[in-house]
Amino acid sequence: MATDIEHTPETDPRSVGLVEKQSVTLFHPPHELTLEGDKSLGPITIAYETYGQLNEARDNAIFICHALTGDAHVAGRRRPEDRKPGWWDAFVGPGKGIDTSKYFVICANVLGGCQGTTGPTSPNPATGAPYGINFPFLTIADIVRVHKALIDYLGIDRLLGVVGGSLGGMQVLEWAARYPDSIRSAVVLASGPRLSPQGIAFNAVGRRAIFTDPRFRDGDYYGQEDKPQFGLALARMIAHITYLSEKSIQMKFGRKLQHSDELTYDLQRETEFQIESYLHYQGKRFVERFDANSYLLLTRAMDYFDLEEAHGPMRESLARTDARFLVVSYTTDWLFPTGQSREIVSALLDARRDVTFLELDSPHGHDAFLIESELPMLHDVVSPFFDVTYASHARH
Amino acid sequence: MATDIEHTPETDPRSVGLVEKQSVTLFHPPHELTLEGDKSLGPITIAYETYGQLNEARDNAIFICHALTGDAHVAGRRRPEDRKPGWWDAFVGPGKGIDTSKYFVICANVLGGCQGTTGPTSPNPATGAPYGINFPFLTIADIVRVHKALIDYLGIDRLLGVVGGSLGGMQVLEWAARYPDSIRSAVVLASGPRLSPQGIAFNAVGRRAIFTDPRFRDGDYYGQEDKPQFGLALARMIAHITYLSEKSIQMKFGRKLQHSDELTYDLQRETEFQIESYLHYQGKRFVERFDANSYLLLTRAMDYFDLEEAHGPMRESLARTDARFLVVSYTTDWLFPTGQSREIVSALLDARRDVTFLELDSPHGHDAFLIESELPMLHDVVSPFFDVTYASHARH
Repeated sequence: MATDIEHTPETDPRSVGLVEKQSVTLFHPPHELTLEGDKSLGPITIAYETYGQLNEARDNAIFICHALTGDAHVAGRRRPEDRKPGWWDAFVGPGKGIDTSKYFVICANVLGGCQGTTGPTSPNPATGAPYGINFPFLTIADIVRVHKALIDYLGIDRLLGVVGGSLGGMQVLEWAARYPDSIRSAVVLASGPRLSPQGIAFNAVGRRAIFTDPRFRDGDYYGQEDKPQFGLALARMIAHITYLSEKSIQMKFGRKLQHSDELTYDLQRETEFQIESYLHYQGKRFVERFDANSYLLLTRAMDYFDLEEAHGPMRESLARTDARFLVVSYTTDWLFPTGQSREIVSALLDARRDVTFLELDSPHGHDAFLIESELPMLHDVVSPFFDVTYASHARH
Repeated sequence: MATDIEHTPETDPRSVGLVEKQSVTLFHPPHELTLEGDKSLGPITIAYETYGQLNEARDNAIFICHALTGDAHVAGRRRPEDRKPGWWDAFVGPGKGIDTSKYFVICANVLGGCQGTTGPTSPNPATGAPYGINFPFLTIADIVRVHKALIDYLGIDRLLGVVGGSLGGMQVLEWAARYPDSIRSAVVLASGPRLSPQGIAFNAVGRRAIFTDPRFRDGDYYGQEDKPQFGLALARMIAHITYLSEKSIQMKFGRKLQHSDELTYDLQRETEFQIESYLHYQGKRFVERFDANSYLLLTRAMDYFDLEEAHGPMRESLARTDARFLVVSYTTDWLFPTGQSREIVSALLDARRDVTFLELDSPHGHDAFLIESELPMLHDVVSPFFDVTYASHARH
């Protein structure tokens, strides 16, 4: 008879176990980073985590690019009592999709974020106060340039792979176009070479919710008792709808009521339907961990990203690397529909590059690459992909 | 050589010309309307317009049910100097899709609206002040019951047809189920027997934008200098995205910039992309003509509507009328996808009712039934539909 054994982080053989937040500060003046928007920024602290062991040849490192509101804490627990592990714990660990018993895995919080890497909550060295809205405008390219500096600092010449979903997938594409010799493979999940104008529209209304919250105070809300929580929560609620699919909302909530079987006919009850209650909960949870200025910066970076505008046609820009590509889309993802992935794949085929493409069938929309029940499907593709990449390199 | 002749409203033979806003007050105490939420409301003033002539047999009347933010002003101009005609002027007039040279056309502003029919901006007889947030909760059924009272008042026993799109289509379905003997035909455009939970989600975030605007003042903002314009505009911007389609946004705006060919790298510029500028413009225009409390009430009525919950299976509730049905959906409508129309059609077929169904190919999403370029297609279906309905009745 099978028994469920509850593993503590330390004893679960499929967990990376207890992990440590690391950080390094680079781009010290006068070697500041000149951003795409022409302003310079430095020093830049980069918060990151690593799992597994870098081998002697230093050729088994995989860099994970996190999505819009993710962070460096991918797997394991920082403290034994943590209720939840990192955001991709089900996919990263010994024997998992990204196997930490074979590979050295790195993830860093993005530039402009709010989880340890320099961002608007960090003190501006010129004033000692948080940058706030004065944090310089940044792009996906700037994010990737900072990550590349981290990889250089870690003494890794060439990554076995870069992998990321959504905004993380944009970083992967930028990485391939900008540093073609620094990667052996690239995994792009639920992403595309640019955000659709519909996606820009949703980001715009989300930012609008923040800008019009009076507690936003033109971005200068640090140290204030009340922050633009309503605006930020609303932005998240709007965005969250685009991460789901009509089908997944229908399956999970339908038109079910939250509090009773009877309609209340009360206009001021905001959580009458379960889907409303769920969105409110998501908004509330989000503001506990995220910063409004970071949200503004990173959604704008997402809007601005346009691989072909920056690097020319993909069949040329992606031809500069001999990395193997894995491109994955999801059937019900309407933020980055499969057509976006096909464009990448088609350009790689034109460039006679090694590319594997899968459209995975899932009801879970854009978020499918983060949903535990969908990960076995992804495991079966990603795991052999890295193994073959590693083996084919080792044979040379 | 063809010359463009500019027609004034009075001389354009295809326009209904100058029109007058009419109104009648019904449900005088003690004959108040008992609403579905059990509160009673009266007196109720109904603002409406009519076009064409009611014939002697009083059997050529068509009632138009307007959508969420529409009003009774369907066609023509109220004053010669009006820059714009009514919202469906391209479809309603002599020789148009709904031919006012043959039919007597009526449209009334909905209960709870803000264009002349009793709603939250109307004075509460108990206090003399506007109802505001104390306006009683209302449903689609309540809206239809008020419209039916108007038809009775006009001395019309049986309508040749009721027609409506989106929230108007819900009213048409409710009308058919509630007053089966009062209609000879029903035209349901871009609608369905209930709003999807995804639609509820979008309505919820829109209402949230209003509720969290400090100028909303719990709905008591009348007479105040500043109204919840930011919240209402934001609600409209969010909703407007759902009225378009990914394709139409791509076609009309793509990723084109609004002000220059160069990105500005300015986080506080909210209208960098054309799609952003367009949404801001839509929000700004909307708050000039619409009331926040009305928006709350009517979106909630839309959420609540569930034809089968209220009247039982459609194959039974819609079998009670012998009206002919015309059901139209649009290929790129994702707020009311074609599946919703198919459900209605399938129930009508089960009930052996006379139904015509068309999925029209259009890039314009949910709003297609309002877009001038898409109306010739609709004309070719609706015009013969009413002619045949009228002729088949006349033969009896």
